[in-house]
Amino acid sequence: MDRHIRKIRGGITAAAGFSAGGVRAGIKRSGEPDLALLFSDRRCSAAGTFTTNKIRASSVDWSKCRLPSNAIRAVVCNSGCANACTGRRGVKDTAAMARFAASALGIAADAMLVAATGVIGHFLPIDAVAAAMPELKRKLSDNGGTSFVKAIMTTDRVRKESAVAVKSGRRGYTIGGCAKGSGMIRPDMATMLAFIATDAAITPARLDPIVKRVVNRTFNNLTVDGDTSTNDMLLVLANGASGRAVVGKTALAAFEEGLYAVCNDLCTRIAADGEGATKRVEVRVKRGATEAEAKKAALAVANSNLTKCALFGNDPNWGRIACAVGYSGARFSDRTMTIHLCGIPVFKNLQPLPFDQMKAHDALKKKVVSIDINLGIGKATAVAHTCDFSYDYVKINAEYHT
Amino acid sequence: MDRHIRKIRGGITAAAGFSAGGVRAGIKRSGEPDLALLFSDRRCSAAGTFTTNKIRASSVDWSKCRLPSNAIRAVVCNSGCANACTGRRGVKDTAAMARFAASALGIAADAMLVAATGVIGHFLPIDAVAAAMPELKRKLSDNGGTSFVKAIMTTDRVRKESAVAVKSGRRGYTIGGCAKGSGMIRPDMATMLAFIATDAAITPARLDPIVKRVVNRTFNNLTVDGDTSTNDMLLVLANGASGRAVVGKTALAAFEEGLYAVCNDLCTRIAADGEGATKRVEVRVKRGATEAEAKKAALAVANSNLTKCALFGNDPNWGRIACAVGYSGARFSDRTMTIHLCGIPVFKNLQPLPFDQMKAHDALKKKVVSIDINLGIGKATAVAHTCDFSYDYVKINAEYHT
Repeated sequence: MDRHIRKIRGGITAAAGFSAGGVRAGIKRSGEPDLALLFSDRRCSAAGTFTTNKIRASSVDWSKCRLPSNAIRAVVCNSGCANACTGRRGVKDTAAMARFAASALGIAADAMLVAATGVIGHFLPIDAVAAAMPELKRKLSDNGGTSFVKAIMTTDRVRKESAVAVKSGRRGYTIGGCAKGSGMIRPDMATMLAFIATDAAITPARLDPIVKRVVNRTFNNLTVDGDTSTNDMLLVLANGASGRAVVGKTALAAFEEGLYAVCNDLCTRIAADGEGATKRVEVRVKRGATEAEAKKAALAVANSNLTKCALFGNDPNWGRIACAVGYSGARFSDRTMTIHLCGIPVFKNLQPLPFDQMKAHDALKKKVVSIDINLGIGKATAVAHTCDFSYDYVKINAEYHT
Repeated sequence: MDRHIRKIRGGITAAAGFSAGGVRAGIKRSGEPDLALLFSDRRCSAAGTFTTNKIRASSVDWSKCRLPSNAIRAVVCNSGCANACTGRRGVKDTAAMARFAASALGIAADAMLVAATGVIGHFLPIDAVAAAMPELKRKLSDNGGTSFVKAIMTTDRVRKESAVAVKSGRRGYTIGGCAKGSGMIRPDMATMLAFIATDAAITPARLDPIVKRVVNRTFNNLTVDGDTSTNDMLLVLANGASGRAVVGKTALAAFEEGLYAVCNDLCTRIAADGEGATKRVEVRVKRGATEAEAKKAALAVANSNLTKCALFGNDPNWGRIACAVGYSGARFSDRTMTIHLCGIPVFKNLQPLPFDQMKAHDALKKKVVSIDINLGIGKATAVAHTCDFSYDYVKINAEYHT
């Protein structure tokens, strides 16, 4: 990480001027926390990225049509119910949730963003949401980041929070965030949600392209099972409470770097906590003809069930990796393409390399496994984040609904 | 099935003039049969379809560059070693296997087609192949279809054979075939291979487009796990031994229908025997804007791990089906799209329909499960074949190699 960017403790409330909290509204049958609120003490610049699925939750439509914006004040998010595939009633319920939260906070409903995660095709118990709102408002705290993230979790086993202090020029600012779930463009159905809050001052016009670029390098390279949810959403709110305005090339580059650090950290945490995961996997591609092709190759390997089952079994079956590169559509050189598994060269010049199977087997037992693919053509690179594929993935997803 | 097409017993040797057999050459560590030979007593028209993977086994290159042809006499196929990612030595071994078989049969090596299946990145024990050839030649029999199919199996639990008698005009002919594995364009890594032999007389120029059309409607809509093997291959040999020439519109249509019946039957058998499958799944899409879009929607659902885990758990979680249609790229009508699960209407007008959960749960316990999706736009249809996704899929693929 650059010397201007320092990792600090905290999550969504690490930056000044933000408060957050979460409560049990009774949406989840388990009785776990399921309603979360993030509030800024002043208007924020805000930008976001959303699922590309044509079947979208009404919360996606609500938030997407309001961004980018310079007048966002809060985000309300429920877990336990995706409120997707719920037709007109779903649209009404999303608007009602925004209205209830805005009313409790004393702001306009148009200053609210909405997110949701959970099972598709069930209606939101909107009366329970309304009833919980006063308590949720009372629980808001500038130390409430952890309470917030607990209330947006579904099948997550660990909380995902990350924050950095950015020093740019004389003054600094903070970028903090949290996430839940397991993917973005190809996420686990339990939905990937990420929220980032910063006290930097940046215009929506500058924020928006930076958010899209950073997401393209981080969350869009994250996959657990290749399914793209109806509810995915990443939101970035910048309230300017630090007094530091992000203007000029150097300052914008530092901001982008800081945002990347938080997003990349959240991605690795999501991959490590992928459903049923026993290990995290980084697929690093270099010397691709274009960035798009490097990404295609990395994601094909990261989405290969066969590769991921082999990794679960600590099996150095690199042929499955080569196979996935082969069908990815990325170009590679017959003569200079190489594959390394946990740093061990296994494939070169379209031929197998001799290696110590037991040593490779042991290397695969680590908590983080790397796959390095050199396509041997151009200069483009890409990194995909994923996890292995275990019995527990099947168990979780065969039993999630009933 | 049309009245001109009658299902009969048998497989690759059902048609006249073909003999086949299989032996234990010692390629598989398990000692199971692993070398198979199909022989025609006269020259055949032949056509085929092959994996689209850029990393291809040398057997794919060998066979692909010889088709379509009017001078094919035999097919040699080994299991237990894919002979893929094996560089120049792999290319030489494939040519040697063709030469050994041709020499045993007393034909030119150019009249041989070659196929292989098994683990990637291992060299073929070519001496063992050479040593087994005389016995393989002796075992050739016009009842040898079953012996042949046994020798091409890897993780298959059952043999897949199918045959039809086609009556077209006064005289008839037979189309028989067999297959192994679990997919074609997106098959199980253990490779999908299919061989079809007919005693109809048909020119390569007429055979080739029919084969491509039929494969597009059958094997290309078959998926187990979305991985595309390095070795997939479907070969059709037509030797004319029935004396029946397939010429003219009506006769060609009857031939195509017969070939479709055999290929479709083999597809359903492969889907039912997908790795770890406890049930077969048919995803039927209708009223798509185009055939390509109907196919996209059907394959997105058939490739959705989440949907397939839910089916394994007998969980009527139709939201995962709607979600997969949403990210498939196929257009659908917001107002008239419907989803039926095992015949039960579950989703209409982008809203959930009330249904009896326990009844749906029981319906999902059947050996064959249907998912019907009406996109509500055009007239195109598509059917994808797959299976559910169980613990055993993970088990098989975590432990296959080591």
